[in-house]
Amino acid sequence: MAVDYVHGYSERESRRLDDQAGTLAALLHRGTSYPAGSRVLEVGCGVGAQTVHLVGSSPGARITAVDVSAESLALAREKVAVRHPGAEVDWCHADLFDLPFPEASFDHLFVCFVLEHLPDPARALGILRRLLRPGGTVTVIEGDHGSVLLHPDSAHARAAVDCLVRLQAAAGGDALLGRRLEPLLTGAGYTGVAVRPRTVYADRTVPDLVKGFTRDTFTAMVESVREEALAAGLTTGADWDRGIAGLHRTAEDGGTFLYTFFKAVAVNPPGGGAAPA
Amino acid sequence: MAVDYVHGYSERESRRLDDQAGTLAALLHRGTSYPAGSRVLEVGCGVGAQTVHLVGSSPGARITAVDVSAESLALAREKVAVRHPGAEVDWCHADLFDLPFPEASFDHLFVCFVLEHLPDPARALGILRRLLRPGGTVTVIEGDHGSVLLHPDSAHARAAVDCLVRLQAAAGGDALLGRRLEPLLTGAGYTGVAVRPRTVYADRTVPDLVKGFTRDTFTAMVESVREEALAAGLTTGADWDRGIAGLHRTAEDGGTFLYTFFKAVAVNPPGGGAAPA
Repeated sequence: MAVDYVHGYSERESRRLDDQAGTLAALLHRGTSYPAGSRVLEVGCGVGAQTVHLVGSSPGARITAVDVSAESLALAREKVAVRHPGAEVDWCHADLFDLPFPEASFDHLFVCFVLEHLPDPARALGILRRLLRPGGTVTVIEGDHGSVLLHPDSAHARAAVDCLVRLQAAAGGDALLGRRLEPLLTGAGYTGVAVRPRTVYADRTVPDLVKGFTRDTFTAMVESVREEALAAGLTTGADWDRGIAGLHRTAEDGGTFLYTFFKAVAVNPPGGGAAPA
Repeated sequence: MAVDYVHGYSERESRRLDDQAGTLAALLHRGTSYPAGSRVLEVGCGVGAQTVHLVGSSPGARITAVDVSAESLALAREKVAVRHPGAEVDWCHADLFDLPFPEASFDHLFVCFVLEHLPDPARALGILRRLLRPGGTVTVIEGDHGSVLLHPDSAHARAAVDCLVRLQAAAGGDALLGRRLEPLLTGAGYTGVAVRPRTVYADRTVPDLVKGFTRDTFTAMVESVREEALAAGLTTGADWDRGIAGLHRTAEDGGTFLYTFFKAVAVNPPGGGAAPA
């Protein structure tokens, strides 16, 4: 893929993705369990943050995990080996737009936090659909940074989040993709599309979530693009620091933080190998 | 109360509140059911949009419903009589800040879409707490217009929503109150505060929700303040119309709409009649 991966590939970033998956696993993976023997493809597994939960929730499924980064794939393999010793996952180093699988190779696709990084998510969904047997399902999970709600509210904090949105757009992605999962899936020829919000809300009465999500996941993600935001001239050091301070205030006593993920499940229609009209 | 009620008292508005309560009842009232014989006070029952659901979910509870508007109260009484013939509700015409009940008169309080209209919601929660027996609960439900997420996004639509937020603020209220329920309740001396988001998401795959919520509830609510927004100089006729058109587009095929309500439950601490520190 020609696009930059906005979150980078640092070790700190790998830890952040781990924290995120651990805290959010129950929320995001609820309802996702594949039957024993079914063929499941995880597209864009990255460092395996979601793969470990897939393996845990669907112990008998035959999981294949693919990623464009060999380095991430190695980390993912290591993580699954540690968390689920003996679990068999087929690891595949390949580009999403050039996957080495025949048509209808899989019963289920799992695509989490991937479309947001692609310049043409509609095309990706169409290509992926061909890998599904007729009647097979796709599950897509995406965030949407426009859903952030802060208390106390902070224009600087919102501007810092917007820097991330703009950097991701400049890299060819869309950090506001969650809200358009339904038209994307329907447009790519899937049927039975069902999108549901998965909303995270954190205040001092749920301190683990404040730490695990508000601070170590979302705020850390925004903080990680500081240098890029400054280099791109999107903010000044002082404004950026005010923005980050504003995000941290929502994690203090009396602060609150809200974020909505979107989870979609859809079906490759029986006999529906044709491209959508 | 000295404040204007931003939604007005027209018959059309009464129908809108009915639509809203019907569509959202399952989402908002889920988990709220009071034991037979328990004394429940609904504060600010308005035209009874929520009262009918309270009566339905807690058939044996002894419900008292209070409102500052005698006209609304009459409509509420009529609505309950139609939907739940024979149900006994004590109707009380009074100001929230001057309620004719002794301390500890109630086991449970229910306060839905009321705090958003008050200039001092913290004081209201403190006053109401005295009406609760020690160990009694309060349930508060509020929206937050900052949570609106539109696809396709529309700056004009967001500006129209912001007109409503500003009009409500000018009337002494706060249409962004949902996000601060936790600090408000904790600050008013309640304990065991638990706030959970109740998120509504609508797209063409759930047409009843598109009609009942996106169109007939939210968009209708914004549309209803057109004249006030123009009179206050917050917008122009052309910009307003573009904004409303933008909201309607989210209800068309391929559009999506997201809104988050906040539902809080909290306890009047045993032996905790004292004012908070």
